[in-house]
Amino acid sequence: MTDREEREGRSVVPIGVLVSGSGTNLQAILDATEESGFPASVAVVISNRRDAFGLERARRAGIPAVWVPHRGKDRAAFETALVAVLQEHGVEWVFLAGFMRILTGLFLNAFPDRVINIHPALLPAFPGVNAQGQAHDYGVRISGVTVHFVDEGTDTGPIVAQGAAPILPTDDATQVQQRLLRLEHELLPKVVKWAAEGRLNVIGRKVEVRLPEGDSHTLWLDG
Amino acid sequence: MTDREEREGRSVVPIGVLVSGSGTNLQAILDATEESGFPASVAVVISNRRDAFGLERARRAGIPAVWVPHRGKDRAAFETALVAVLQEHGVEWVFLAGFMRILTGLFLNAFPDRVINIHPALLPAFPGVNAQGQAHDYGVRISGVTVHFVDEGTDTGPIVAQGAAPILPTDDATQVQQRLLRLEHELLPKVVKWAAEGRLNVIGRKVEVRLPEGDSHTLWLDG
Repeated sequence: MTDREEREGRSVVPIGVLVSGSGTNLQAILDATEESGFPASVAVVISNRRDAFGLERARRAGIPAVWVPHRGKDRAAFETALVAVLQEHGVEWVFLAGFMRILTGLFLNAFPDRVINIHPALLPAFPGVNAQGQAHDYGVRISGVTVHFVDEGTDTGPIVAQGAAPILPTDDATQVQQRLLRLEHELLPKVVKWAAEGRLNVIGRKVEVRLPEGDSHTLWLDG
Repeated sequence: MTDREEREGRSVVPIGVLVSGSGTNLQAILDATEESGFPASVAVVISNRRDAFGLERARRAGIPAVWVPHRGKDRAAFETALVAVLQEHGVEWVFLAGFMRILTGLFLNAFPDRVINIHPALLPAFPGVNAQGQAHDYGVRISGVTVHFVDEGTDTGPIVAQGAAPILPTDDATQVQQRLLRLEHELLPKVVKWAAEGRLNVIGRKVEVRLPEGDSHTLWLDG
């Protein structure tokens, strides 16, 4: 147990966060774990990119930051290396926060029903890369974000929570991205909390959440 | 000009509504046209089904109700018959309100950028039949409705407005349908009004709307 866990007299669930980029979602999780009584702590941050700013955020927070390169390895070797680092740090849940590599069954079977991703669209609309740009180009009036369990498809796993926001006619793709990030930063730490509290249960395609009193699976951001 | 138009000193745009079923969206339009100053009136209601309750709603409102059967005709003959009835009644805009037949270029070219559909999902998610059931089975937390221009694809045309609502874990497919109907009944008459007021302009995949002051392309229904 850590000092904080001893102080609070109960265990805190260790999670791993995988990032490829600047890690603003990682930061939202780190900020949440600073709150008194938050039921999870980040045990390790991993990136496939050495220069990902997410690794720097981890270091600044005093959290192990590990670069696991994907270049020069086949997919199995890459995923085996990821699993090894996560297990070494005792990770119970894995959160993908802007992690840009597809994961296969090799990785997922090491953490069955314990890998969660956040995607910047209202899935099943706009899966895959550049979801915000896809939404902007399509001309939708409403888009959003989805927190979902990861399966072997591209953004196809069971959905935990979604948030929606208007897309304004004056928005460019960057403004859409900014608005959706606000949803992401609110929704992801909430799901981390639910996961650590044992509130999530995957049943087929559906996720049963024992919601805390007054909490919701959905979020609407008006403008 | 009708008596009402003369009374109000300006023209009211004649629209046609196509239905296949009970016509609750037609009813929402009929109710809106009863409001003083509403800029459109329903000139004719057409159904491909003789027993569609939508036709009865039209008759009760004193509006021409025409059955155009699709059976025993090829698609071109069916659409030619639809166009003839609509033109005979001087229709300027066509609204599909639960009309379950795909329309081809033959029909659409008779009313270029003047055919609008309402679909019970946040397109491009869940196009085609039984969108509410598709959304329920997928396990989304948020679904909605889309009002869009009709093109030759299935629910692929440029989007005018969208409304969203939470899908609750306790919902069955019927409850999802009921919640989405509330969005439809609010959104569709609003778009009829915008169309009649000349506020809609299709530019490629996007729809430019000169929104009335304080109005919005989006709607969120909370529970």
